[in-house]
Amino acid sequence: MSTNKIKAGILGASGYTGAELVRLLVRHPLFEIAAMTADRQAGKDIGEVFPHLGGLGLPPLVRIEDADLSGLDAVFCGLPHGTTQEVIAGLPETLKVVDLSADFRLTDVDVYEEWYGHEHRAPALQADAAYGLTETHREQIRPARLVANPGCYPTSAMLPLIPLLDGGLIDADDIIIDAKSGVTGAGRAPKEGTLFAEVDGGVHAYGVAHHRHMPEIEQELSAAAGRSITVNFTPHLMPMSRGILSTIYVRLADGAGADDLRAALDGRYTDEPFVRVLPDGAAPATRHVRGSNHCLIGVFADRVPGRAIVLSVIDNLVKGASGQAVQNMNLICGLDETTALEQEPLFP
Amino acid sequence: MSTNKIKAGILGASGYTGAELVRLLVRHPLFEIAAMTADRQAGKDIGEVFPHLGGLGLPPLVRIEDADLSGLDAVFCGLPHGTTQEVIAGLPETLKVVDLSADFRLTDVDVYEEWYGHEHRAPALQADAAYGLTETHREQIRPARLVANPGCYPTSAMLPLIPLLDGGLIDADDIIIDAKSGVTGAGRAPKEGTLFAEVDGGVHAYGVAHHRHMPEIEQELSAAAGRSITVNFTPHLMPMSRGILSTIYVRLADGAGADDLRAALDGRYTDEPFVRVLPDGAAPATRHVRGSNHCLIGVFADRVPGRAIVLSVIDNLVKGASGQAVQNMNLICGLDETTALEQEPLFP
Amino acid sequence: MSTNKIKAGILGASGYTGAELVRLLVRHPLFEIAAMTADRQAGKDIGEVFPHLGGLGLPPLVRIEDADLSGLDAVFCGLPHGTTQEVIAGLPETLKVVDLSADFRLTDVDVYEEWYGHEHRAPALQADAAYGLTETHREQIRPARLVANPGCYPTSAMLPLIPLLDGGLIDADDIIIDAKSGVTGAGRAPKEGTLFAEVDGGVHAYGVAHHRHMPEIEQELSAAAGRSITVNFTPHLMPMSRGILSTIYVRLADGAGADDLRAALDGRYTDEPFVRVLPDGAAPATRHVRGSNHCLIGVFADRVPGRAIVLSVIDNLVKGASGQAVQNMNLICGLDETTALEQEPLFP
Amino acid sequence: MSTNKIKAGILGASGYTGAELVRLLVRHPLFEIAAMTADRQAGKDIGEVFPHLGGLGLPPLVRIEDADLSGLDAVFCGLPHGTTQEVIAGLPETLKVVDLSADFRLTDVDVYEEWYGHEHRAPALQADAAYGLTETHREQIRPARLVANPGCYPTSAMLPLIPLLDGGLIDADDIIIDAKSGVTGAGRAPKEGTLFAEVDGGVHAYGVAHHRHMPEIEQELSAAAGRSITVNFTPHLMPMSRGILSTIYVRLADGAGADDLRAALDGRYTDEPFVRVLPDGAAPATRHVRGSNHCLIGVFADRVPGRAIVLSVIDNLVKGASGQAVQNMNLICGLDETTALEQEPLFP
Repeated sequence: MSTNKIKAGILGASGYTGAELVRLLVRHPLFEIAAMTADRQAGKDIGEVFPHLGGLGLPPLVRIEDADLSGLDAVFCGLPHGTTQEVIAGLPETLKVVDLSADFRLTDVDVYEEWYGHEHRAPALQADAAYGLTETHREQIRPARLVANPGCYPTSAMLPLIPLLDGGLIDADDIIIDAKSGVTGAGRAPKEGTLFAEVDGGVHAYGVAHHRHMPEIEQELSAAAGRSITVNFTPHLMPMSRGILSTIYVRLADGAGADDLRAALDGRYTDEPFVRVLPDGAAPATRHVRGSNHCLIGVFADRVPGRAIVLSVIDNLVKGASGQAVQNMNLICGLDETTALEQEPLFP
Repeated sequence: MSTNKIKAGILGASGYTGAELVRLLVRHPLFEIAAMTADRQAGKDIGEVFPHLGGLGLPPLVRIEDADLSGLDAVFCGLPHGTTQEVIAGLPETLKVVDLSADFRLTDVDVYEEWYGHEHRAPALQADAAYGLTETHREQIRPARLVANPGCYPTSAMLPLIPLLDGGLIDADDIIIDAKSGVTGAGRAPKEGTLFAEVDGGVHAYGVAHHRHMPEIEQELSAAAGRSITVNFTPHLMPMSRGILSTIYVRLADGAGADDLRAALDGRYTDEPFVRVLPDGAAPATRHVRGSNHCLIGVFADRVPGRAIVLSVIDNLVKGASGQAVQNMNLICGLDETTALEQEPLFP
Repeated sequence: MSTNKIKAGILGASGYTGAELVRLLVRHPLFEIAAMTADRQAGKDIGEVFPHLGGLGLPPLVRIEDADLSGLDAVFCGLPHGTTQEVIAGLPETLKVVDLSADFRLTDVDVYEEWYGHEHRAPALQADAAYGLTETHREQIRPARLVANPGCYPTSAMLPLIPLLDGGLIDADDIIIDAKSGVTGAGRAPKEGTLFAEVDGGVHAYGVAHHRHMPEIEQELSAAAGRSITVNFTPHLMPMSRGILSTIYVRLADGAGADDLRAALDGRYTDEPFVRVLPDGAAPATRHVRGSNHCLIGVFADRVPGRAIVLSVIDNLVKGASGQAVQNMNLICGLDETTALEQEPLFP
Repeated sequence: MSTNKIKAGILGASGYTGAELVRLLVRHPLFEIAAMTADRQAGKDIGEVFPHLGGLGLPPLVRIEDADLSGLDAVFCGLPHGTTQEVIAGLPETLKVVDLSADFRLTDVDVYEEWYGHEHRAPALQADAAYGLTETHREQIRPARLVANPGCYPTSAMLPLIPLLDGGLIDADDIIIDAKSGVTGAGRAPKEGTLFAEVDGGVHAYGVAHHRHMPEIEQELSAAAGRSITVNFTPHLMPMSRGILSTIYVRLADGAGADDLRAALDGRYTDEPFVRVLPDGAAPATRHVRGSNHCLIGVFADRVPGRAIVLSVIDNLVKGASGQAVQNMNLICGLDETTALEQEPLFP
């Protein structure tokens, strides 16, 4: 281990996003994983919890209160929402933090309270947090000490929608987001609803009209629209481990066509390493981004006059969580954003 | 074999809908499978083509030109579109026919020609065909000799939408159907796009804005709306073998709420043996209808004022194809519609 | 509900085997489901726990201590092992019982204690229980009041092996059973190891050399061999909900060939409605028995001289659990064994 | 593109192993993909054939006769068996070649003819080819110009078995290999047997006792045993895209125990970067090597005295094909074997 590397800690390393952080960081040339916490798995080697990560010479899992965070430079925080606020509030101020929970995503603490059912426990810190959708918020993120990494559904929906709203190309009052997600989005804690036999071979909607990613989506889309808007967001559980496809139904602004939307998105993202707009007629598939930090976007004219269909895919654990977290940490540490994220997707 | 049973033939028995017809009819107390055709598999026992159907003492597969159809009373026709028209036109007029292809679904032969790329070859027969969505077209089906069995996507979308349009409860000009289908809908002929490794673990949209089930959906929804309408219909390929979920986004008519939609559907279907409207808050899952002729429907209020979300699930091979075909054949033969269709779903 | 029907109770109706019992019994012409217990789900309708079983007019789920069992004629017991012994010991003696747990499968209560870690709590009852592999133990089952329904793995392995050992066609000291099972075998209680994301897209062995179905397999194979034998049994968890394939490697007795094994099995099972021996060259697939009470068996010569490979498939929830339970209950109630079990498999 | 990089061609780039070669080589710091052939897809960009590989600035796909191979330094050959022999015989002799087909794996051209049904077309070249199981044949591979990359099944079976036979720890006449493979092993050409609906949700054995990987396995195991041996090898098709698990049943040599086997394998592979022997009690899972060049091995004592169970997992497309091909090419080009193969597995 080089003493010149940035020393990173992973709080909450025993979940899927934790494992994905380890997978990415272990090959990062400028970071070193110096601490990992996992309360219920404390004392174990990460290889016992995730056998695919064995034999890498990583530090043992410890309880968060037993972790020596004093020597760290950076922390990825993958704790459950609610507990995160106090933990981060208690970290040394010199630490750079990317938080993967929902705790600092909502700028209005009243909205947080409404959706999460308890008071925000670190409102001052909230005011300092940068919302971490890298491609659209890069300049706010760069100088931040604390980044609120976006939710997976919001990431897949906002990457195409923010430029379209920014450009006035679509009607902000008629947006329908039909989202299809892999099961890892629900985490690794055992629940009946995510058992293999309950998910395999079928599909269903859930959290219809009241999923907790909704206020986050509306907050950022409202900012892009320049006024408060309400959208439809309907998530579906897919029989697949990874990936989100958002099928977004929009009404075109007067004079705009589907080709204009595609051109606007293509122009907006042409220099972005992780976002690619597909040519006319090409529909993106979640399996074409699996394991990568990529987002693919396709745009189609609708048969219904004046409407278009926008399709967006990401890997929920990478661009929708740990990959974007590394991208943001690279950014706030002054590194090339793409470092450790260059892998191509794994297909099939 | 009883000579008193209705003698049925299955034309095109080697595909998935053919196998499903055999599965259902072999336990039908009043039908006898007297002939099965399958051009490329002619000469084989059905058990060689579908091992789960071996040992049932069924007649061998023959080429259609070698089949003796003279002694039959009824025919299920599962041939590819295009060829079906001439085959059915050549059948003895005494035969009752349920056709599972698209060949007689479109009442306007010009629309047929536009979407299928060739002239309709039996326009006179088309005029006599009844469209076979049983629950909504029962009285036209009952006296018919030829029933055009609906497509799988149209069935899942129209069962909830027709009563809502009939009742004037939704805006006919703002209907979005986001449909998610299992792979068997694409048939058993080998194609790269339906290989396991191309489908498993992911999801994508296909046929965006130009799927061939669109004119069928628009024809029937226009009839219900009382004028010509255009709808959005976006199909997605799921990593599952069976099932369709249609997530339908609608704008409410003035004064109507989601509860009104649910009540209207519940009232409409309360005496139907195969359609069940779920209580508020319950989202139907495709795996809860697998292998059955059931359709489950759920209705949710949208966060966006004035809008609602309607969810509908069927098994594409049963209510979306062979089950509804048996239901229709029961009906035109004067039998109880539910005969041979009473099985509960197979879950998980 | 007819008062002439046999009144059946299902103890433990909220698990997968319970749901499968309901699916089969609800269409049974001679049984009526008169009571269902489920401790943690007490008070609910079965349709809330298993939506595919809603709307059938079944009695509500109750706690076992609140169930009125006095009017019942028959009980299916699907409780966890250990608790079952006392529950069954407390049932009225007039009740016919098929027990799906492991509690009465092992005739030697010491072996039970060794593998399950506690004393047997109803040793007298154990002495009266018949082991319920229907095809091989029919005459002992027929007069019994209590049937110990076999485990799923043992059923798949013993149906081919018992006749081969009986006939002296294989070496009893060289039997290797490589078994591959669907996930429902592990039950519906949430565990990390059966989450979708932990099972999908991969395979692994588990319980190597110490799975609890081992003593049951050895007990019955020893009985068939006429002396105590030890076998290899290695279970694997498959990314599928249902089905078991046992690939069994055997050494042939002197003078015997693979064809002799096939002929012996075919002769033994030719009149059995649920067991079918495939012709030379045909390998059975679990998907060809899904949802049915069938067992398919194939036999192949090995390249290694003097050896053969025997393949056997069942649906673990049907012939491996609830289907065989209904078959046994039919048998002890004097009904046709196949009643309510005639459904063909659901493929795909 | 640097002119200092090794210029590599991929012959047959449109199959799964071709895509996997591209995925690995595109991030290789010392190789440059300079040519790719694909007869049926000639003229297309690789991103049209494999959307996950779009936007990488790679050369277009061309027909093999149109490819300019003169400027290349190295070729990966992923053509179908049979055609490969003449193609490689016609390549410039300066080119280093790793062949992924079966064409040069069998040292005895008569055995090749027996299993592949035609004469070997380049027997002289066969004599020069090195068999490419890197860990066990490194010294023969290093100086070779042509490496015959092993089959996927053989790789998974031989990595554990060769050291055990070498060490005399197991009986060479009693080896049973029960192998479970993902579907990509069957290639991307559409076939009924590899359609999603034919594979999902089930398992079956295939090629029982006559799979073409058998002579390759027997050739190398015979070499390790020091005499000609015959083994049982029974492949099974899994409902998963990637991965092979070989469950290997062995008889221990006198005096040896399962712990001795594990210790021998651990000692043999302790310095190998891609092979890891798990501690007692740990069973390897295919999902723990997905996307990586790793092989994990576990060893268990059997309940049957004198026997043991050896478990081995690889990703069939990486260590079983393209990863090992890159490893071998690195080796014959004098590079660090692990270059471009350092990625951790993708789980889940």
